[in-house]
Amino acid sequence: MNATRRQLAILRSLRTRKGRGESGLFLVEGVRLCSELIPAKARVEIVLVAEGRDPSGALGKQAAQLASAGAEVLQAPLRDFERISDTVNSQGILAAAQWDDLAPEALRFTEQATVLALDGVSDPGNVGTVIRTAAWFGVSAVLLGEGCADLLNPKTVRATMGGIFQLPICRDVELKDESGRLKRLGFRVSAATMDGSPDWSGWAKNPRSALILGSEARGVSEELRRLADRRITIPRRGAGESLNVAVSAGILLSAL
Amino acid sequence: MNATRRQLAILRSLRTRKGRGESGLFLVEGVRLCSELIPAKARVEIVLVAEGRDPSGALGKQAAQLASAGAEVLQAPLRDFERISDTVNSQGILAAAQWDDLAPEALRFTEQATVLALDGVSDPGNVGTVIRTAAWFGVSAVLLGEGCADLLNPKTVRATMGGIFQLPICRDVELKDESGRLKRLGFRVSAATMDGSPDWSGWAKNPRSALILGSEARGVSEELRRLADRRITIPRRGAGESLNVAVSAGILLSAL
Repeated sequence: MNATRRQLAILRSLRTRKGRGESGLFLVEGVRLCSELIPAKARVEIVLVAEGRDPSGALGKQAAQLASAGAEVLQAPLRDFERISDTVNSQGILAAAQWDDLAPEALRFTEQATVLALDGVSDPGNVGTVIRTAAWFGVSAVLLGEGCADLLNPKTVRATMGGIFQLPICRDVELKDESGRLKRLGFRVSAATMDGSPDWSGWAKNPRSALILGSEARGVSEELRRLADRRITIPRRGAGESLNVAVSAGILLSAL
Repeated sequence: MNATRRQLAILRSLRTRKGRGESGLFLVEGVRLCSELIPAKARVEIVLVAEGRDPSGALGKQAAQLASAGAEVLQAPLRDFERISDTVNSQGILAAAQWDDLAPEALRFTEQATVLALDGVSDPGNVGTVIRTAAWFGVSAVLLGEGCADLLNPKTVRATMGGIFQLPICRDVELKDESGRLKRLGFRVSAATMDGSPDWSGWAKNPRSALILGSEARGVSEELRRLADRRITIPRRGAGESLNVAVSAGILLSAL
Protein backbone atom coordinates (compact mmCIF):
# COMPACT_ATOMS: atom_id res chain seq x y z
CA MET A 1 0.00 0.00 0.00
CA ASN A 2 1.19 3.51 -0.68
CA ALA A 3 2.20 5.54 2.33
CA THR A 4 0.01 8.56 2.99
CA ARG A 5 1.43 12.07 3.37
CA ARG A 6 0.71 11.79 7.06
CA GLN A 7 2.58 8.51 7.41
CA LEU A 8 5.54 9.92 5.51
CA ALA A 9 5.54 12.96 7.80
CA ILE A 10 5.59 10.76 10.91
CA LEU A 11 8.44 8.70 9.50
CA ARG A 12 10.36 11.82 8.59
CA SER A 13 9.87 13.21 12.11
CA LEU A 14 11.83 10.22 13.44
CA ARG A 15 15.02 11.88 12.25
CA THR A 16 14.64 14.28 15.18
CA ARG A 17 14.74 13.58 18.89
CA LYS A 18 11.47 15.47 19.29
CA GLY A 19 9.72 13.32 16.69
CA ARG A 20 11.02 10.12 18.27
CA GLY A 21 9.94 11.30 21.69
CA GLU A 22 6.40 12.04 20.51
CA SER A 23 5.81 8.71 18.80
CA GLY A 24 8.09 6.40 20.79
CA LEU A 25 9.39 5.07 17.44
CA PHE A 26 12.85 5.05 15.89
CA LEU A 27 14.21 4.37 12.40
CA VAL A 28 15.99 1.16 11.46
CA GLU A 29 17.52 1.42 7.99
CA GLY A 30 18.81 -1.10 5.50
CA VAL A 31 18.59 -4.83 4.96
CA ARG A 32 21.12 -5.84 7.58
CA LEU A 33 19.71 -3.82 10.46
CA CYS A 34 16.11 -4.72 9.54
CA SER A 35 17.09 -8.39 9.63
CA GLU A 36 17.86 -7.97 13.34
CA LEU A 37 14.32 -6.86 14.16
CA ILE A 38 12.66 -10.28 14.19
CA PRO A 39 15.25 -12.16 16.30
CA ALA A 40 15.26 -9.15 18.65
CA LYS A 41 11.44 -9.40 18.95
CA ALA A 42 11.21 -5.67 18.27
CA ARG A 43 7.72 -4.28 17.81
CA VAL A 44 7.80 -2.92 14.28
CA GLU A 45 4.99 -0.56 13.35
CA ILE A 46 5.82 0.36 9.77
CA VAL A 47 8.10 -0.96 7.06
CA LEU A 48 8.70 1.38 4.14
CA VAL A 49 10.03 0.12 0.81
CA ALA A 50 11.18 2.48 -1.96
CA GLU A 51 9.43 1.93 -5.27
CA GLY A 52 11.62 0.57 -8.03
CA ARG A 53 14.43 -0.42 -5.67
CA ASP A 54 13.51 -4.07 -5.39
CA PRO A 55 14.17 -5.75 -8.76
CA SER A 56 15.23 -9.02 -7.12
CA GLY A 57 12.29 -9.09 -4.71
CA ALA A 58 14.58 -9.44 -1.69
CA LEU A 59 13.19 -6.33 0.00
CA GLY A 60 9.63 -7.50 -0.55
CA LYS A 61 10.49 -10.81 1.09
CA GLN A 62 12.02 -9.08 4.09
CA ALA A 63 9.01 -6.75 4.30
CA ALA A 64 6.67 -9.75 4.21
CA GLN A 65 8.50 -11.34 7.14
CA LEU A 66 8.09 -8.15 9.12
CA ALA A 67 4.43 -7.95 8.09
CA SER A 68 3.85 -11.41 9.53
CA ALA A 69 5.33 -10.11 12.76
CA GLY A 70 2.75 -7.35 12.82
CA ALA A 71 4.23 -4.49 10.81
CA GLU A 72 2.29 -2.49 8.26
CA VAL A 73 4.15 -2.55 4.94
CA LEU A 74 4.05 0.62 2.88
CA GLN A 75 5.74 1.82 -0.23
CA ALA A 76 6.72 5.26 -1.40
CA PRO A 77 8.40 6.88 -4.40
CA LEU A 78 12.19 6.91 -4.06
CA ARG A 79 12.20 10.69 -3.63
CA ASP A 80 9.92 10.50 -0.60
CA PHE A 81 11.86 7.55 0.78
CA GLU A 82 15.11 9.46 0.56
CA ARG A 83 13.68 12.39 2.51
CA ILE A 84 13.23 10.00 5.43
CA SER A 85 16.37 7.92 5.09
CA ASP A 86 19.50 9.15 6.82
CA THR A 87 21.86 7.12 4.64
CA VAL A 88 23.45 8.44 1.46
CA ASN A 89 23.05 5.26 -0.58
CA SER A 90 20.01 3.70 0.95
CA GLN A 91 19.05 0.13 0.15
CA GLY A 92 15.39 1.04 -0.19
CA ILE A 93 14.03 -0.42 3.04
CA LEU A 94 13.53 1.06 6.48
CA ALA A 95 11.40 0.31 9.50
CA ALA A 96 9.88 2.29 12.34
CA ALA A 97 10.18 0.25 15.52
CA GLN A 98 9.05 0.84 19.07
CA TRP A 99 11.77 1.43 21.64
CA ASP A 100 11.01 0.14 25.10
CA ASP A 101 13.05 2.03 27.59
CA LEU A 102 14.85 -0.09 30.14
CA ALA A 103 15.56 1.28 33.60
CA PRO A 104 18.93 0.34 35.12
CA GLU A 105 17.04 -1.05 38.12
CA ALA A 106 15.42 -3.61 35.82
CA LEU A 107 18.80 -5.08 34.78
CA ARG A 108 19.45 -8.51 36.22
CA PHE A 109 23.11 -9.41 36.54
CA THR A 110 24.68 -12.83 36.68
CA GLU A 111 27.56 -13.65 39.01
CA GLN A 112 30.03 -12.48 36.37
CA ALA A 113 28.99 -9.22 34.76
CA THR A 114 30.55 -6.28 32.98
CA VAL A 115 28.80 -2.95 32.60
CA LEU A 116 30.01 -0.20 30.29
CA ALA A 117 28.92 3.37 31.04
CA LEU A 118 29.38 6.41 28.78
CA ASP A 119 29.58 9.91 30.24
CA GLY A 120 29.02 12.80 27.82
CA VAL A 121 29.98 10.99 24.60
CA SER A 122 28.15 13.29 22.24
CA ASP A 123 29.05 11.92 18.81
CA PRO A 124 26.40 9.47 17.53
CA GLY A 125 28.97 7.51 15.52
CA ASN A 126 31.13 7.05 18.61
CA VAL A 127 28.23 5.96 20.82
CA GLY A 128 27.13 3.50 18.13
CA THR A 129 30.63 2.10 17.63
CA VAL A 130 31.08 1.65 21.39
CA ILE A 131 27.83 -0.36 21.46
CA ARG A 132 28.98 -2.43 18.48
CA THR A 133 32.23 -3.16 20.33
CA ALA A 134 30.40 -3.97 23.57
CA ALA A 135 28.20 -6.44 21.67
CA TRP A 136 31.28 -8.16 20.25
CA PHE A 137 32.75 -8.59 23.70
CA GLY A 138 29.51 -9.72 25.31
CA VAL A 139 29.17 -6.85 27.77
CA SER A 140 26.20 -7.32 30.16
CA ALA A 141 24.75 -3.83 29.66
CA VAL A 142 25.59 -0.37 28.34
CA LEU A 143 24.49 2.71 30.27
CA LEU A 144 24.27 6.05 28.48
CA GLY A 145 24.68 8.97 30.86
CA GLU A 146 24.18 12.68 30.60
CA GLY A 147 25.39 14.45 27.46
CA CYS A 148 25.51 11.30 25.35
CA ALA A 149 24.24 11.25 21.79
CA ASP A 150 20.72 9.87 21.52
CA LEU A 151 20.79 6.09 21.13
CA LEU A 152 17.85 6.32 18.72
CA ASN A 153 19.46 8.89 16.40
CA PRO A 154 19.64 7.12 13.01
CA LYS A 155 23.41 7.70 12.92
CA THR A 156 23.85 6.01 16.30
CA VAL A 157 21.59 3.11 15.34
CA ARG A 158 23.51 2.59 12.10
CA ALA A 159 26.93 2.70 13.79
CA THR A 160 25.88 -0.02 16.26
CA MET A 161 25.75 -2.42 13.27
CA GLY A 162 22.99 -4.32 15.01
CA GLY A 163 24.50 -4.06 18.49
CA ILE A 164 21.47 -2.00 19.59
CA PHE A 165 19.45 -5.25 19.42
CA GLN A 166 22.10 -7.49 20.96
CA LEU A 167 22.54 -6.27 24.51
CA PRO A 168 20.59 -4.29 27.12
CA ILE A 169 21.06 -0.52 26.80
CA CYS A 170 19.73 2.09 29.22
CA ARG A 171 19.34 5.73 28.19
CA ASP A 172 19.42 8.94 30.23
CA VAL A 173 21.06 7.23 33.17
CA GLU A 174 22.08 9.33 36.17
CA LEU A 175 25.54 7.78 36.35
CA LYS A 176 26.35 9.26 39.74
CA ASP A 177 23.47 7.41 41.40
CA GLU A 178 23.98 4.37 39.24
CA SER A 179 27.64 3.89 40.13
CA GLY A 180 26.67 3.90 43.79
CA ARG A 181 24.02 1.29 43.11
CA LEU A 182 26.43 -0.88 41.11
CA LYS A 183 28.95 -0.72 43.95
CA ARG A 184 26.30 -1.94 46.36
CA LEU A 185 25.66 -4.81 43.95
CA GLY A 186 29.31 -5.80 44.25
CA PHE A 187 30.62 -4.08 41.13
CA ARG A 188 34.08 -2.62 41.11
CA VAL A 189 33.86 0.66 39.19
CA SER A 190 36.78 1.80 37.01
CA ALA A 191 36.98 5.14 35.23
CA ALA A 192 39.17 5.54 32.14
CA THR A 193 41.12 8.79 32.59
CA MET A 194 44.37 10.33 31.36
CA ASP A 195 45.94 10.11 34.85
CA GLY A 196 45.03 6.62 35.95
CA SER A 197 47.00 3.45 36.51
CA PRO A 198 48.77 2.26 33.37
CA ASP A 199 48.32 -1.29 34.58
CA TRP A 200 44.75 -1.74 33.45
CA SER A 201 44.97 -5.33 32.29
CA GLY A 202 43.26 -6.54 35.46
CA TRP A 203 40.52 -3.90 35.59
CA ALA A 204 37.87 -6.57 35.11
CA LYS A 205 39.31 -9.18 37.42
CA ASN A 206 36.48 -8.67 39.86
CA PRO A 207 33.59 -10.96 38.90
CA ARG A 208 31.48 -7.83 38.55
CA SER A 209 33.13 -4.85 36.87
CA ALA A 210 31.89 -1.55 35.57
CA LEU A 211 33.86 0.76 33.29
CA ILE A 212 33.11 4.43 32.74
CA LEU A 213 34.38 6.13 29.58
CA GLY A 214 34.09 9.89 29.10
CA SER A 215 33.87 12.33 26.25
CA GLU A 216 36.96 12.83 24.12
CA ALA A 217 36.96 16.52 24.90
CA ARG A 218 36.48 16.49 28.65
CA GLY A 219 36.94 12.90 29.80
CA VAL A 220 34.98 11.40 32.68
CA SER A 221 33.44 14.09 34.88
CA GLU A 222 35.27 14.98 38.07
CA GLU A 223 32.42 13.72 40.22
CA LEU A 224 32.34 10.30 38.55
CA ARG A 225 36.12 10.04 38.76
CA ARG A 226 35.90 10.55 42.50
CA LEU A 227 33.13 7.98 42.84
CA ALA A 228 35.06 5.32 40.93
CA ASP A 229 37.04 2.66 42.80
CA ARG A 230 40.00 3.19 40.49
CA ARG A 231 41.21 5.14 37.50
CA ILE A 232 42.87 3.42 34.59
CA THR A 233 44.78 4.71 31.57
CA ILE A 234 45.86 3.13 28.31
CA PRO A 235 49.59 3.87 28.20
CA ARG A 236 50.74 6.04 25.32
CA ARG A 237 53.83 4.86 23.50
CA GLY A 238 54.00 7.31 20.60
CA ALA A 239 53.47 10.95 19.72
CA GLY A 240 49.68 10.63 19.35
CA GLU A 241 47.60 12.80 21.61
CA SER A 242 44.46 10.84 22.20
CA LEU A 243 42.48 7.74 21.38
CA ASN A 244 38.97 7.58 19.97
CA VAL A 245 36.51 6.56 22.68
CA ALA A 246 35.38 3.43 20.81
CA VAL A 247 38.99 2.41 20.27
CA SER A 248 39.61 2.85 24.01
CA ALA A 249 36.52 0.78 24.77
CA GLY A 250 37.78 -2.00 22.50
CA ILE A 251 41.23 -2.04 24.06
CA LEU A 252 39.90 -2.16 27.61
CA LEU A 253 37.15 -4.69 26.86
CA SER A 254 39.63 -6.98 25.11
CA ALA A 255 41.22 -7.48 28.54
CA LEU A 256 37.98 -8.95 29.89
CA MET B 1 45.67 40.29 2.20
CA ASN B 2 42.42 39.24 0.62
CA ALA B 3 42.44 35.97 -1.26
CA THR B 4 41.84 36.32 -4.99
CA ARG B 5 39.11 34.36 -6.78
CA ARG B 6 41.84 32.23 -8.28
CA GLN B 7 43.39 31.44 -4.90
CA LEU B 8 39.98 30.55 -3.49
CA ALA B 9 39.36 28.27 -6.46
CA ILE B 10 42.65 26.46 -5.90
CA LEU B 11 41.89 26.02 -2.21
CA ARG B 12 38.43 24.76 -3.00
CA SER B 13 39.85 22.25 -5.50
CA LEU B 14 41.74 20.61 -2.60
CA ARG B 15 38.50 19.04 -1.47
CA THR B 16 38.84 16.66 -4.43
CA ARG B 17 41.51 14.08 -5.11
CA LYS B 18 41.98 15.54 -8.59
CA GLY B 19 42.63 19.02 -7.23
CA ARG B 20 45.09 17.71 -4.66
CA GLY B 21 46.86 15.70 -7.35
CA GLU B 22 47.25 18.74 -9.59
CA SER B 23 48.68 21.06 -6.96
CA GLY B 24 50.38 18.60 -4.59
CA LEU B 25 48.65 20.42 -1.73
CA PHE B 26 46.18 19.26 0.91
CA LEU B 27 43.93 21.03 3.40
CA VAL B 28 44.68 21.23 7.10
CA GLU B 29 41.72 22.66 9.01
CA GLY B 30 41.31 24.14 12.44
CA VAL B 31 43.53 25.46 15.21
CA ARG B 32 44.64 22.10 16.57
CA LEU B 33 45.68 20.54 13.28
CA CYS B 34 47.33 23.76 12.07
CA SER B 35 49.37 23.84 15.29
CA GLU B 36 50.99 20.57 14.18
CA LEU B 37 52.34 22.08 10.96
CA ILE B 38 55.36 23.88 12.42
CA PRO B 39 56.71 21.05 14.61
CA ALA B 40 56.14 18.71 11.65
CA LYS B 41 58.20 21.05 9.43
CA ALA B 42 55.43 20.91 6.84
CA ARG B 43 55.79 23.24 3.89
CA VAL B 44 52.72 25.46 4.14
CA GLU B 45 51.86 27.47 1.07
CA ILE B 46 48.74 29.31 2.11
CA VAL B 47 46.95 30.05 5.36
CA LEU B 48 43.38 31.27 5.03
CA VAL B 49 41.61 33.06 7.87
CA ALA B 50 37.87 33.80 7.81
CA GLU B 51 37.00 37.47 8.28
CA GLY B 52 35.26 38.30 11.53
CA ARG B 53 36.07 34.95 13.12
CA ASP B 54 39.05 36.12 15.12
CA PRO B 55 37.83 38.47 17.87
CA SER B 56 40.52 37.28 20.31
CA GLY B 57 43.34 37.52 17.78
CA ALA B 58 44.37 33.89 18.36
CA LEU B 59 43.94 32.92 14.71
CA GLY B 60 46.00 35.93 13.60
CA LYS B 61 48.78 34.86 15.96
CA GLN B 62 48.75 31.32 14.60
CA ALA B 63 48.70 32.65 11.03
CA ALA B 64 51.68 34.91 11.81
CA GLN B 65 53.67 31.91 13.08
CA LEU B 66 52.92 30.08 9.86
CA ALA B 67 53.83 33.20 7.85
CA SER B 68 57.24 33.29 9.50
CA ALA B 69 57.65 29.68 8.36
CA GLY B 70 57.04 30.77 4.80
CA ALA B 71 53.26 30.62 4.31
CA GLU B 72 51.28 33.33 2.56
CA VAL B 73 48.49 34.52 4.86
CA LEU B 74 45.21 35.39 3.21
CA GLN B 75 41.76 36.28 4.42
CA ALA B 76 38.35 35.75 2.93
CA PRO B 77 34.73 36.45 3.80
CA LEU B 78 33.23 33.70 5.95
CA ARG B 79 30.97 32.60 3.09
CA ASP B 80 33.95 31.96 0.81
CA PHE B 81 35.87 30.30 3.63
CA GLU B 82 33.01 27.92 4.31
CA ARG B 83 32.88 26.84 0.67
CA ILE B 84 36.44 25.53 1.13
CA SER B 85 36.21 24.13 4.64
CA ASP B 86 35.02 20.57 5.05
CA THR B 87 33.99 21.02 8.68
CA VAL B 88 30.50 21.98 9.76
CA ASN B 89 31.53 24.39 12.50
CA SER B 90 34.85 25.63 11.27
CA GLN B 91 37.14 27.59 13.55
CA GLY B 92 37.99 30.06 10.79
CA ILE B 93 41.51 28.93 9.93
CA LEU B 94 42.83 26.46 7.38
CA ALA B 95 46.11 25.85 5.62
CA ALA B 96 47.19 24.37 2.31
CA ALA B 97 50.33 22.32 2.87
CA GLN B 98 52.58 20.37 0.57
CA TRP B 99 52.51 16.60 0.93
CA ASP B 100 55.80 14.88 0.21
CA ASP B 101 55.14 11.33 -0.76
CA LEU B 102 57.26 8.76 0.98
CA ALA B 103 58.12 5.50 -0.77
CA PRO B 104 58.15 2.39 1.42
CA GLU B 105 61.74 1.76 0.27
CA ALA B 106 62.76 5.03 1.91
CA LEU B 107 61.58 3.88 5.35
CA ARG B 108 64.43 3.12 7.74
CA PHE B 109 63.58 0.66 10.49
CA THR B 110 65.23 0.24 13.84
CA GLU B 111 65.88 -3.17 15.39
CA GLN B 112 62.42 -3.12 16.92
CA ALA B 113 59.78 -1.97 14.50
CA THR B 114 56.06 -2.35 13.92
CA VAL B 115 54.41 -1.61 10.61
CA LEU B 116 50.66 -1.34 10.14
CA ALA B 117 49.23 -1.90 6.65
CA LEU B 118 45.66 -1.23 5.51
CA ASP B 119 44.13 -3.16 2.62
CA GLY B 120 41.02 -1.65 1.03
CA VAL B 121 39.86 0.43 4.00
CA SER B 122 37.73 2.86 2.03
CA ASP B 123 36.16 5.01 4.74
CA PRO B 124 38.19 8.21 5.34
CA GLY B 125 37.12 8.37 8.99
CA ASN B 126 38.32 4.82 9.57
CA VAL B 127 41.67 5.37 7.86
CA GLY B 128 42.17 8.55 9.88
CA THR B 129 41.22 6.90 13.17
CA VAL B 130 43.58 3.98 12.49
CA ILE B 131 46.41 6.50 11.95
CA ARG B 132 45.46 8.33 15.17
CA THR B 133 45.60 5.01 17.01
CA ALA B 134 48.91 4.06 15.38
CA ALA B 135 50.38 7.40 16.48
CA TRP B 136 49.27 6.75 20.06
CA PHE B 137 50.98 3.38 20.09
CA GLY B 138 54.15 4.60 18.40
CA VAL B 139 53.90 2.45 15.28
CA SER B 140 56.97 2.79 13.00
CA ALA B 141 55.02 3.37 9.79
CA VAL B 142 51.56 3.04 8.25
CA LEU B 143 51.18 1.69 4.72
CA LEU B 144 47.99 2.44 2.79
CA GLY B 145 47.33 -0.16 0.12
CA GLU B 146 44.94 -0.43 -2.77
CA GLY B 147 41.35 0.65 -2.23
CA CYS B 148 42.10 2.77 0.83
CA ALA B 149 40.55 6.19 1.31
CA ASP B 150 42.88 9.00 0.27
CA LEU B 151 45.09 10.03 3.17
CA LEU B 152 44.80 13.66 2.06
CA ASN B 153 41.00 13.72 1.95
CA PRO B 154 40.05 16.43 4.50
CA LYS B 155 37.92 13.88 6.38
CA THR B 156 40.88 11.51 6.71
CA VAL B 157 43.22 14.31 7.77
CA ARG B 158 40.76 15.48 10.40
CA ALA B 159 40.17 11.99 11.81
CA THR B 160 43.91 11.47 12.32
CA MET B 161 43.75 14.22 14.98
CA GLY B 162 47.30 15.21 14.07
CA GLY B 163 48.55 11.64 13.62
CA ILE B 164 49.21 12.40 9.94
CA PHE B 165 52.15 14.54 11.13
CA GLN B 166 53.36 12.16 13.81
CA LEU B 167 54.51 9.05 11.98
CA PRO B 168 55.66 8.03 8.48
CA ILE B 169 52.76 7.16 6.17
CA CYS B 170 53.10 5.73 2.65
CA ARG B 171 50.24 5.98 0.15
CA ASP B 172 49.32 3.78 -2.80
CA VAL B 173 51.48 0.93 -1.58
CA GLU B 174 51.44 -2.34 -3.52
CA LEU B 175 51.03 -4.43 -0.37
CA LYS B 176 51.73 -7.73 -2.12
CA ASP B 177 55.25 -6.64 -3.08
CA GLU B 178 55.71 -4.77 0.16
CA SER B 179 54.93 -7.73 2.41
CA GLY B 180 57.57 -9.73 0.56
CA ARG B 181 60.08 -6.94 1.08
CA LEU B 182 59.20 -6.63 4.78
CA LYS B 183 59.70 -10.38 5.21
CA ARG B 184 63.15 -10.11 3.67
CA LEU B 185 63.86 -7.33 6.18
CA GLY B 186 63.07 -9.76 8.99
CA PHE B 187 59.48 -8.73 9.61
CA ARG B 188 56.95 -11.30 10.64
CA VAL B 189 53.73 -10.48 8.81
CA SER B 190 50.36 -11.08 10.49
CA ALA B 191 46.99 -10.62 8.82
CA ALA B 192 43.88 -9.94 10.90
CA THR B 193 41.13 -12.22 9.59
CA MET B 194 37.92 -13.82 10.87
CA ASP B 195 39.47 -17.33 10.76
CA GLY B 196 42.86 -16.79 12.36
CA SER B 197 44.40 -17.82 15.64
CA PRO B 198 42.49 -16.48 18.65
CA ASP B 199 45.77 -16.29 20.52
CA TRP B 200 46.95 -13.02 19.08
CA SER B 201 48.55 -11.57 22.19
CA GLY B 202 52.02 -12.47 20.91
CA TRP B 203 51.56 -11.29 17.35
CA ALA B 204 54.23 -8.64 17.82
CA LYS B 205 56.70 -10.73 19.79
CA ASN B 206 59.11 -10.71 16.86
CA PRO B 207 61.34 -7.62 17.12
CA ARG B 208 60.00 -6.64 13.71
CA SER B 209 56.29 -7.16 13.13
CA ALA B 210 53.89 -6.11 10.44
CA LEU B 211 50.10 -6.26 10.75
CA ILE B 212 47.69 -6.14 7.83
CA LEU B 213 44.09 -5.05 8.47
CA GLY B 214 41.46 -5.32 5.75
CA SER B 215 38.23 -3.62 4.83
CA GLU B 216 35.23 -4.23 7.06
CA ALA B 217 33.24 -5.59 4.15
CA ARG B 218 35.74 -7.96 2.59
CA GLY B 219 38.61 -8.33 5.05
CA VAL B 220 42.23 -8.79 3.98
CA SER B 221 42.45 -9.93 0.34
CA GLU B 222 42.97 -13.64 -0.28
CA GLU B 223 46.37 -13.04 -1.82
CA LEU B 224 47.66 -11.05 1.16
CA ARG B 225 46.26 -13.65 3.56
CA ARG B 226 48.28 -16.30 1.78
CA LEU B 227 51.41 -14.17 1.84
CA ALA B 228 51.16 -13.51 5.59
CA ASP B 229 53.15 -15.60 8.06
CA ARG B 230 50.10 -16.00 10.23
CA ARG B 231 46.47 -15.05 10.59
CA ILE B 232 45.10 -13.69 13.84
CA THR B 233 41.56 -13.07 15.08
CA ILE B 234 40.17 -11.10 17.98
CA PRO B 235 37.94 -13.63 19.76
CA ARG B 236 34.27 -12.77 19.89
CA ARG B 237 32.56 -13.22 23.23
CA GLY B 238 29.12 -11.79 22.52
CA ALA B 239 26.43 -11.55 19.88
CA GLY B 240 28.12 -8.75 17.95
CA GLU B 241 28.96 -9.47 14.35
CA SER B 242 32.03 -7.38 13.66
CA LEU B 243 34.45 -4.82 14.99
CA ASN B 244 35.28 -1.46 13.48
CA VAL B 245 38.71 -1.57 11.79
CA ALA B 246 40.15 1.20 14.01
CA VAL B 247 38.87 -0.59 17.12
CA SER B 248 40.56 -3.79 15.87
CA ALA B 249 43.78 -1.86 15.25
CA GLY B 250 43.67 -0.47 18.78
CA ILE B 251 43.08 -3.87 20.36
CA LEU B 252 45.91 -5.53 18.43
CA LEU B 253 48.35 -2.62 18.86
CA SER B 254 47.69 -2.51 22.61
CA ALA B 255 49.38 -5.93 22.75
CA LEU B 256 52.63 -4.45 21.39
